Amino acid sequence: MTSPSSADQMADPSTPRVPADHPAIDDFFALLAYAEVAAFYRLTDEARMAPNLRGRISMASMAAAEMGHYEVLRDALERRGVDVVSAMSKFVPALENYHRLTTPSTWLEALVKTYVGDALASALYLQIAGGLPEEIADVVRAALAETGHSQFVVAEVRAAITASGKQRSRLALWSRRLFGETITQAQYLLADHDQLVDLVVFGAGGLGQLTTFFNRLQEAHDQRMRDLGLS
Amino acid sequence: MTSPSSADQMADPSTPRVPADHPAIDDFFALLAYAEVAAFYRLTDEARMAPNLRGRISMASMAAAEMGHYEVLRDALERRGVDVVSAMSKFVPALENYHRLTTPSTWLEALVKTYVGDALASALYLQIAGGLPEEIADVVRAALAETGHSQFVVAEVRAAITASGKQRSRLALWSRRLFGETITQAQYLLADHDQLVDLVVFGAGGLGQLTTFFNRLQEAHDQRMRDLGLS
Repeated sequence: MTSPSSADQMADPSTPRVPADHPAIDDFFALLAYAEVAAFYRLTDEARMAPNLRGRISMASMAAAEMGHYEVLRDALERRGVDVVSAMSKFVPALENYHRLTTPSTWLEALVKTYVGDALASALYLQIAGGLPEEIADVVRAALAETGHSQFVVAEVRAAITASGKQRSRLALWSRRLFGETITQAQYLLADHDQLVDLVVFGAGGLGQLTTFFNRLQEAHDQRMRDLGLS
Repeated sequence: MTSPSSADQMADPSTPRVPADHPAIDDFFALLAYAEVAAFYRLTDEARMAPNLRGRISMASMAAAEMGHYEVLRDALERRGVDVVSAMSKFVPALENYHRLTTPSTWLEALVKTYVGDALASALYLQIAGGLPEEIADVVRAALAETGHSQFVVAEVRAAITASGKQRSRLALWSRRLFGETITQAQYLLADHDQLVDLVVFGAGGLGQLTTFFNRLQEAHDQRMRDLGLS
């Protein structure tokens, strides 16, 4: 997932913060925890499309790192007296649905999804973390720490689109679809779990700032597109 | 995988040891490295049979730990100037074949395979490590360190066989089949890679001790069967 720097730039000591015992924080941790588990299984599934052993191993390493992040969240929930598995259950359908709607059909699509999808998810979660107490935001940042394997994604996608303009157009389209689907599914998720809306509104700096909130997701996405040579 | 204690009891300062620059050590590390990758993918596949989210997550955590062990071996090979992916390739068919021949058909069979299969593999590798220089044996022990998740396997299998005598007989039979297949496949592997035979002979304390070598595998297996209530 992306580096925590984008959250730091949003940290503002004057921003009102959600109290540390707000029950929605348990939900937010549980949502993130299941996002890691779902990412683990998706990456492992998609590794089947890898053209060689090196690609399969890179995907396996990324997947293993997601479970490390899951454990950070599980431990944080345990300290709050919450059982992670029970707390995650209600978020299973939304996240499985998101992945079902964005199943890659090629190895390159899988790589782009890893890079673009994770950046979007991180931008979303880190903006929310911006409205949470520092000790809570720290857990979120630890759970979203860079897995350190994304350089291989950038190298492989860039090589493919340099070799083929058609591939470039296909992947640019795929990337836009991922963005649209992420925003749509995030909105559904909020509509179904209104306790989370509080956190988003705090993170955005109030209801009036929601446009800024979504603009920042767009910016995170555009940056990743540029990294991949797809903008 | 099993704890390193069983290797310690075999360490004997009078045993002749393979020199640290023996080329078969690269092969041995590469074999172990691919064993970890293969275990990662197998555990993730088998997690599909889990009856619930808790089981799927336990399997994912075990799989992630295998990738941590893989990284220990990859780093050790890098320090020896060897590219792990190239070095592993020749062991892919043997390990995939072993897993193909021992594919579990139920969740309980998958759990038993995890517990019994890993113990056998560890006993095998740690006996070989017993004939290697200390710094090499240390890498092997680090790569085989207990993943710390096996208690859930013992609890789940014991509950199932207490509830059903038929299940107990089935799983005891399955466990014996795993043992037989492991020995057979280990022998094929040695026949195809005779540079590894040197290491086994050193680890066993000479050709005349090979019976002891296989007896110790049997002992490791029997211990796991007792742990599971299957003996």
